[in-house]
Amino acid sequence: MTRRRVAIVGVGHSKYGYRYDVNLQELAWEAIKQALEDAGLDQKSIEYVVYGNVGVWSSEPLPAVAINEYAGLTPAGTMRVEAACATGSAAIKAAYDAVASGMADIAMAVGVEKMNESPTPIVVELIGRAGNYFWEFENFGLTFPGYYALYATAYMAATGATEEDLCRVAVKNHYYAARNPKAHFPREITLEQCMQSRYIAWPLKLYDCSPITDGAAAVILASEELARKITDTPVWIKGVGVASDTSNISRRPDFLVRRGVVEAVKKAYRMAGIDYENAAKQVDLAEVHDAFTIAEILSYEELGFAKRGEGYKLIREGQTYIGGLIPVNVSGGLKAKGHPLGATGVGMAAEIATQLRGEADRGRQVPVKNGVGVANNVGGTGHYAYVFVYSLQP
Amino acid sequence: MTRRRVAIVGVGHSKYGYRYDVNLQELAWEAIKQALEDAGLDQKSIEYVVYGNVGVWSSEPLPAVAINEYAGLTPAGTMRVEAACATGSAAIKAAYDAVASGMADIAMAVGVEKMNESPTPIVVELIGRAGNYFWEFENFGLTFPGYYALYATAYMAATGATEEDLCRVAVKNHYYAARNPKAHFPREITLEQCMQSRYIAWPLKLYDCSPITDGAAAVILASEELARKITDTPVWIKGVGVASDTSNISRRPDFLVRRGVVEAVKKAYRMAGIDYENAAKQVDLAEVHDAFTIAEILSYEELGFAKRGEGYKLIREGQTYIGGLIPVNVSGGLKAKGHPLGATGVGMAAEIATQLRGEADRGRQVPVKNGVGVANNVGGTGHYAYVFVYSLQP
Repeated sequence: MTRRRVAIVGVGHSKYGYRYDVNLQELAWEAIKQALEDAGLDQKSIEYVVYGNVGVWSSEPLPAVAINEYAGLTPAGTMRVEAACATGSAAIKAAYDAVASGMADIAMAVGVEKMNESPTPIVVELIGRAGNYFWEFENFGLTFPGYYALYATAYMAATGATEEDLCRVAVKNHYYAARNPKAHFPREITLEQCMQSRYIAWPLKLYDCSPITDGAAAVILASEELARKITDTPVWIKGVGVASDTSNISRRPDFLVRRGVVEAVKKAYRMAGIDYENAAKQVDLAEVHDAFTIAEILSYEELGFAKRGEGYKLIREGQTYIGGLIPVNVSGGLKAKGHPLGATGVGMAAEIATQLRGEADRGRQVPVKNGVGVANNVGGTGHYAYVFVYSLQP
Repeated sequence: MTRRRVAIVGVGHSKYGYRYDVNLQELAWEAIKQALEDAGLDQKSIEYVVYGNVGVWSSEPLPAVAINEYAGLTPAGTMRVEAACATGSAAIKAAYDAVASGMADIAMAVGVEKMNESPTPIVVELIGRAGNYFWEFENFGLTFPGYYALYATAYMAATGATEEDLCRVAVKNHYYAARNPKAHFPREITLEQCMQSRYIAWPLKLYDCSPITDGAAAVILASEELARKITDTPVWIKGVGVASDTSNISRRPDFLVRRGVVEAVKKAYRMAGIDYENAAKQVDLAEVHDAFTIAEILSYEELGFAKRGEGYKLIREGQTYIGGLIPVNVSGGLKAKGHPLGATGVGMAAEIATQLRGEADRGRQVPVKNGVGVANNVGGTGHYAYVFVYSLQP
C-alpha cells in the first residue's frame, strides 16, 4: 500500500500576545484567512477541519463548531482535539491522517487559544493540573515551573550546564523574536537581564519561562495531486512521530531525557529517512518546545543534534543561531514568540513552511540547503510527544 | 489510490449508569479490557489510541494520557477529541483515518464520560452551553430539552405526529434496554407512564429525555491484513460521513430536518454503496442519536428510512422494533441505555459490531440479512454529524 503524500499548501499565523481585542472566533479567523489567501483557496475547498484548543480558560465550550461557522467553513466536518501543550500538533496529525487516507483531499488544522481570558493565577493552576493531577499537583502542589526546575536541576548536576547556559537559550530566542513581528515579546534581552531576573522555581528564573499567550495558527494540507495544482512550493509532511509517557514524573527513570520524545523523534525520522546520529546535518532548522529554557536543551539531545549530556554546549557555542550547526527556534520559540497551547504546534508548522519557502522576514531567514525542517511539540512534561519532519522534497 | 480497508476486531462496553464506584481511568479500563480480550490482543499491539471525552464535568484535565497510562497503553501515541455529543464518533473517525492511511496498523478508539461527578443542575447548564453559547444560551436561557422541544413542536405542527408517537419511541427503547444488562435503565415503561410523566419542555416529558449517564466503550480497529489474522468476524467500516451545521438554530431554514445530518448520511452511504432511497432494505439495524425522542423520529427520515414528514409512522406502526422494517436502537438507545457523551458513539459501534456478529443477548438480537448496520451520532442539535456504515462484507 502506498500512502498518499500530503503537503502544506497554505499557512496563517496571527499576532501572538495579549489578544483582549478579539474573541476566540475572530482570533482563529486571523490565521484561517491568511492560510486561505496563501493557498489561493476559498472556504468551499476545505473538506475537513481539525481544531486544536485546550480551552479550559475560555468561555466558548464548543470551539470547533463556533469557529467553523464564523469562518464560513460550514458544512465541513470538524472536531476539536487536545493533547495538552501539544494540542496543535495533534490537530495537524488528525488532518494529515484524513488526507493521507484519502478521506479528504484538502483539510485544515487550526490551533487557537485565548489563555488570558482567565486571570493569570487561575491559568497557572490549570496548567499545573496538566502535570499529574491527582498525585503530584494535589499532593505536592507542583506547577509547571516546578516540574521543569526538577529537570534543570538534574541536568545541571549531571552535566557541566550552568544557569547562564539556560539564559543563553532565552537570549537567543528573544533575539529572533525581535525580528518576528508576530511574536508576543518582539524584543531582545541581555544575558545579564535574564540572570538578574527573579527566581520562579530555582534554577529557573522569569526569563527561563514562556509566557501566557493568546494566538492562532492554521495550515492547509492537500493531497499530492491537488498540492501541485495549488502551489509551486508545497512543503511535504515527510515524517510523523507520536508517542506518550507517564504524566507522573516520579515514575520516570531519570530527568535527563524524555523517553516519549525520543520515541516520537525516532518514528518521525524513520518515516522521513533521516539518520538520528547525523540529524543536524540533514535538517535546516528546528522549532522545538522551549516552554522552559531547559526543555530546549533537552530537545537538542532528544532530536539527535547533540550527544546525551552535551546539549548545553550547542547554545554555549552559539551553534543554534543562524549560521551555526542547526538553527533552533528562529521564530522566537515558545519562550519569546509565545505559547498559546492549541496554536503552538500549528505555529511551528507555519514557521517551518515559511522558512523552507524562503519567505521569512527581517533577518531571520535560515539558509535552505537540505530543504528540511523539524518540529518538536511536547505536551506536559513529555506526556505527549509529537514530531514532524517537513521537506521541500516529496 | 486504494484506501486501506479497516475493520473492528474487538469491542468493549462498560455498564452504563451512575458510576460513583469508579474513577475515570477505571471506567475506561472496563471497556478497554473487554476490547483487548475480545480481540485477543495485549496492550503492546495497540499503536495509537484516540480518547473521546468532553470532560468539563470531570476533575481529570488530561484524560488521554491519564487513561493511557492506567490502561498500560504507554508509549502509544494518543490524543483526546471532542465534538459535543458526537465525541465518541470523532474518536472512531480519527482512529479510522490513522489505520486507513497506514499510520497505524492497529488503533483503538475509547469513549468515556463521568458526567455525574458534577451535580445535575451544573451538568444541565454545561450541556446547555453546548448549544449556541453566546446568543441562545446566554440571552434566552435555552438548554437542550428546550432546543429539541422547538424541533418537536415544529414537527408535530407540520405532520400528523402526536405526543403519543414521541412516547412510543421511549417505550420501544426501554423495552430493549430491559434486555440489555449494560443499560442505565434496564426496565420497561408503558405508554401511560410516559404520557403521564411531567413536562420538561413542552411537548417533551421526562421520559422523552435521555439521562445523565457515566460510561465507557472501546473498539479496536485493524488494517485488513491484521484484521483477518486477529478474528474470523471482522466488522468493516465501509462508510464514514462527517458534516457540520450552524450551532445557532435560529439561523436554520426549518426545524423539520437537520441539514448536517443529511449531508453526513449521504457521504457515508455513497462511500458504502447504499442507496439513500432504499436504505431500510439494505441495512439490518441502526443505532441513532435519540437524546430526545423527537430526534429518533428525525433520524428515521434523515437516514432515508422514511419520507420527509412520515418518520413518526414508523414508530406508530412498530416498524422500528425487531421484525419490523428496520430495527432502531435495540440497545436501548441514548434514551434508556444512556448517553455518556464521549462514550455514546463508540457504544453505538460496539453494539452494531456485536449484533452483526450475532452475539447480542437476551432476546434483542436482530436478524442479520444484509450484514450491514448504521450508526448516526449527532453533536449539539445537529452542529456535528457523524455517520458510519458497518458491514460484514469488506
